Amino acid sequence: MKRPTIADIARRAGVSKVAVSYALNDRPGVSEAKRAVIKAIAQEIGWRPNSAARALNGARARSVGLAVCRPARVLGMEPFFMELISGIESELSARSYGLMLQMVTDHEQETETYRRWWGEGRVDGAILVDLHFADPRVTELETLGMPAVVLGHPSEAGSLVPVWSDDDAPVQETVRYLAALGHRRVARVAGLPRLVHTVLRDRAFTAVCAELGLDDQVVVHTDYTGEEGARATRRLLSSRDRPTAVIYDNDIMAVAGLSVAQEMRLDVPADLSIVAWDDSPLSQVVRPALTALTRDIPAYGAHAARTLLSLIAGERVPGVEDEAARLVPRASTAPPPPTA
Amino acid sequence: MKRPTIADIARRAGVSKVAVSYALNDRPGVSEAKRAVIKAIAQEIGWRPNSAARALNGARARSVGLAVCRPARVLGMEPFFMELISGIESELSARSYGLMLQMVTDHEQETETYRRWWGEGRVDGAILVDLHFADPRVTELETLGMPAVVLGHPSEAGSLVPVWSDDDAPVQETVRYLAALGHRRVARVAGLPRLVHTVLRDRAFTAVCAELGLDDQVVVHTDYTGEEGARATRRLLSSRDRPTAVIYDNDIMAVAGLSVAQEMRLDVPADLSIVAWDDSPLSQVVRPALTALTRDIPAYGAHAARTLLSLIAGERVPGVEDEAARLVPRASTAPPPPTA
Repeated sequence: MKRPTIADIARRAGVSKVAVSYALNDRPGVSEAKRAVIKAIAQEIGWRPNSAARALNGARARSVGLAVCRPARVLGMEPFFMELISGIESELSARSYGLMLQMVTDHEQETETYRRWWGEGRVDGAILVDLHFADPRVTELETLGMPAVVLGHPSEAGSLVPVWSDDDAPVQETVRYLAALGHRRVARVAGLPRLVHTVLRDRAFTAVCAELGLDDQVVVHTDYTGEEGARATRRLLSSRDRPTAVIYDNDIMAVAGLSVAQEMRLDVPADLSIVAWDDSPLSQVVRPALTALTRDIPAYGAHAARTLLSLIAGERVPGVEDEAARLVPRASTAPPPPTA
Repeated sequence: MKRPTIADIARRAGVSKVAVSYALNDRPGVSEAKRAVIKAIAQEIGWRPNSAARALNGARARSVGLAVCRPARVLGMEPFFMELISGIESELSARSYGLMLQMVTDHEQETETYRRWWGEGRVDGAILVDLHFADPRVTELETLGMPAVVLGHPSEAGSLVPVWSDDDAPVQETVRYLAALGHRRVARVAGLPRLVHTVLRDRAFTAVCAELGLDDQVVVHTDYTGEEGARATRRLLSSRDRPTAVIYDNDIMAVAGLSVAQEMRLDVPADLSIVAWDDSPLSQVVRPALTALTRDIPAYGAHAARTLLSLIAGERVPGVEDEAARLVPRASTAPPPPTA
């Protein structure tokens, strides 16, 4: 079976292809009665204007590209990406835009993807994620002149439009809360040190710890997997002056950290307080339920998509600062043990 | 900045647009030296044949569609979909095919998406997931004549090509293992009862329990969320003859079940054995680590994509039976308590 064509409609209606074209494009040259018949037939057999023909006539691709450079095992585990994608989709599908998704293994493959998408007219714009310092992808997108939104801090977004949320305030809120509970030794199990937001959180953490006189603060970097989160926790809890509170950069590492505490016969929260960054149903099904930094990830994706669509429409678009994550205390945080 | 065009190449090379077209399409009418110069310029300025123009010339869209009908909160939590997508991508990107992703809220919106994709020439084929009984999407894809692969059992795939894995053997293997450990009261916390694979697993479970004389078997259906998994577990463990082993249809429900056991002061595995279907890093970071039914989801996605690409290439393609899930015993299963 083939896609229905103008010729199919013409045959059924017993008119010429030109008449069908006039009727469907609402141009004169065909009677109103015949136009109605032709449109009814087009509807019935499921005819659509070919996207290729429309694109050649200068219309848009009506697709937006998203390239993701993370290993499958990390992607599978982090609720973040599927929630982000569903948020992006909610905006796109409302305007009949498609989402072109591509997994890549490195930045070189990613910039090659952008060149191909743009050169072949497959997408009208792109959303860039996991921003690095001096990110070569920013330069590439600037050179291509392709409309693009960056999920990341404005300082590293070049001339592209940033959509971001503040990392400083949530770090401050969390550390101050732990200090108020009496904690003096707080550790941070962080994500990839190449990412801009990791470094911004590291800096905020060091600054607020210094301000509060928490001298034994430690930062450990990982690849976001539960495995590395568990290893980092084991090392931290085996040290002489072990921390009494640990803040994790995602929920799967926090759950892994909770398991390591149980394995080492430490009670959470009596012996160890745990905070997860990026709340998810996972933080809430484990026992104790995890204190977490929460925000609306689908809304973040929706803001990014809406900003990109404005950019594609030729509007002048400012950067968008999304809401910062909020601390939601649950059962995994408490004052430190008296002996600590 | 605009996409580079044939006119740009012609201007730089000081030749006509027709000469450029001859050179780039490897047709005669232009000298070898000039052809080389023209190709070098095309390469330098990043020219690509426009996908729309190629599609109009009868070439393919070089994209494959995937519509997913699940709420964002479920999608975010289940590692399954991101792992599946990354497997699909691995095959597609190797052949420069794109993946067009669309989230939908119901089957009506999904069939409308297929009609639009196919009518507008946006995709060359689709992968259908979450197969239902008497699935209206199967009928729609058959009517459209669009190449399509169904992830699901052949009995419900109509004339579409199925890629599936056996659900019977893993259920049998698990229940027999639990029975061999001495369990007599085994429960199954299942997913959505509308899905074909849920019903096939239900039937296999009932059959093997009957065969082994396990009379107190119970099946509870849920929406796959940790929340419903926790509620089902609470209800099961509050019943008079509570089960001594529970098999969950995904990992997030199994983790939720483990938490409920802890909350009700039951020891896993001494008082309760737990098995998770669909292994993931999550099953391994919790304590005790969960006995799980494991299989290679990215490979499953890759098989589906490869099958669809063959179908698009016009080959006659048989259905593909993928490997069945295997039971991996970990620390969450043991003999039932002596009093049970």
